[in-house]
Amino acid sequence: MKQAAAARLIPISEIFGPTIQGEGALIGRPTVFVRTGGCDYRCSWCDTLYAVLPQYRDEWQPMSSEAILTRVQHLSGGHPLLVTLSGGNPAMQPLAPLLEQGHAQGYTFALETQGSIAQPWFADLEVLTLSPKPPSSGQEMRWERLERCLTAACAGSGNAGPQICLKIVVFDEADYTYAREVAARYPELPLYLQAGNHTPPHLAQEIDTAGILSRLQWLMERVMADQWYEVRVLPQLHTLLWGNRRGV
Amino acid sequence: MKQAAAARLIPISEIFGPTIQGEGALIGRPTVFVRTGGCDYRCSWCDTLYAVLPQYRDEWQPMSSEAILTRVQHLSGGHPLLVTLSGGNPAMQPLAPLLEQGHAQGYTFALETQGSIAQPWFADLEVLTLSPKPPSSGQEMRWERLERCLTAACAGSGNAGPQICLKIVVFDEADYTYAREVAARYPELPLYLQAGNHTPPHLAQEIDTAGILSRLQWLMERVMADQWYEVRVLPQLHTLLWGNRRGV
Repeated sequence: MKQAAAARLIPISEIFGPTIQGEGALIGRPTVFVRTGGCDYRCSWCDTLYAVLPQYRDEWQPMSSEAILTRVQHLSGGHPLLVTLSGGNPAMQPLAPLLEQGHAQGYTFALETQGSIAQPWFADLEVLTLSPKPPSSGQEMRWERLERCLTAACAGSGNAGPQICLKIVVFDEADYTYAREVAARYPELPLYLQAGNHTPPHLAQEIDTAGILSRLQWLMERVMADQWYEVRVLPQLHTLLWGNRRGV
Repeated sequence: MKQAAAARLIPISEIFGPTIQGEGALIGRPTVFVRTGGCDYRCSWCDTLYAVLPQYRDEWQPMSSEAILTRVQHLSGGHPLLVTLSGGNPAMQPLAPLLEQGHAQGYTFALETQGSIAQPWFADLEVLTLSPKPPSSGQEMRWERLERCLTAACAGSGNAGPQICLKIVVFDEADYTYAREVAARYPELPLYLQAGNHTPPHLAQEIDTAGILSRLQWLMERVMADQWYEVRVLPQLHTLLWGNRRGV
């Protein structure tokens, strides 16, 4: 019994907010972030290595879904809001009970994941952002895994399933070409391009705002030159506002 | 006959793009901007006075809807995209033929207006952004006019009508209070708060990016303190990228 209970604990790197979602389809939206610890990827430019690398494991607090929800309720003053589940890769965790308990209290849930691990509870989310990693990440693309995530999200019975969108970080021409390929495979899904931050915490003390903005401009021009009018191009708003600061 | 044709000409301040929509519900979306000349308002912090004040009238080119569409098609390379109708106040203009001709070519239309003038063709738009002006603008609020715009947008037969959203520029506490009032009146409409640019072209040579970002932070904190979780808070992306430059 004790083991079963322990198995349901979720390693939590941080819970913070409410703040503004800084990227993707929900940009500008007030939300509380729940960041789980642990990741099956090691992206070269990862900006949350403290939620990824095993050497940070001691900082991750094992929490029950009840305890997570209590913390979210405290932060939001008991007013239901959008909860953003991020990581690391939150799809590694048993989050079904959290969704169920949160929904009962009026909270809604958006999950951000690279699309490497599918879970049946994807169907219970309000928003699923799949963020397949481009070549610059150094990770290998496994299309069949992304496909499994989409299938899981659509397989729910009894509700409409989540709003699904794609988000791709673009650093260079190879990443851009990859993004075009993803768009061609999934023309029905809204796709967000995000200019990458080449100055994440482990690579730089200060972020290079001018460099990030100039990459954003390049990305916009690239999209226009290809007459790729269905896409959306966005920065990371939180990076422009707060640099690499955590907890905002 | 000549007069009737002339009456259908639309004063155009500028047509530019494709570029990225920098604000509101369509932030990040590639679009061509069609800016009409003439406005029934004189907002103190207007950032497009060249499309508002009569002394710029000589710069406005009277164009037929056919000529406007030809220009848009040229800019977009003949690939249909989202056209953003802005001003000035584009609701002063006879834009029904442009919508009809554009739709026939696959183009879609988003209109941005303060909500002072209603038009039956609002129902034919894809997106209608109503941007009622807060106290800092120096303009008087006429709720019944905004109401008429909403009615016009919903009165169309034969299509679903536009996606409608509200956008309010906030400079100070009085503007914020006003935004709360608008939200209370229209709880069913998505509302976007936009941190104002206190350094528009006629007031400053260079924009004050730090000042704009610090106003954005204040606005975010203000929203969180009120637990106003349904709103969206966004900057003007184009201002952060290009300052007060025109045509981008």
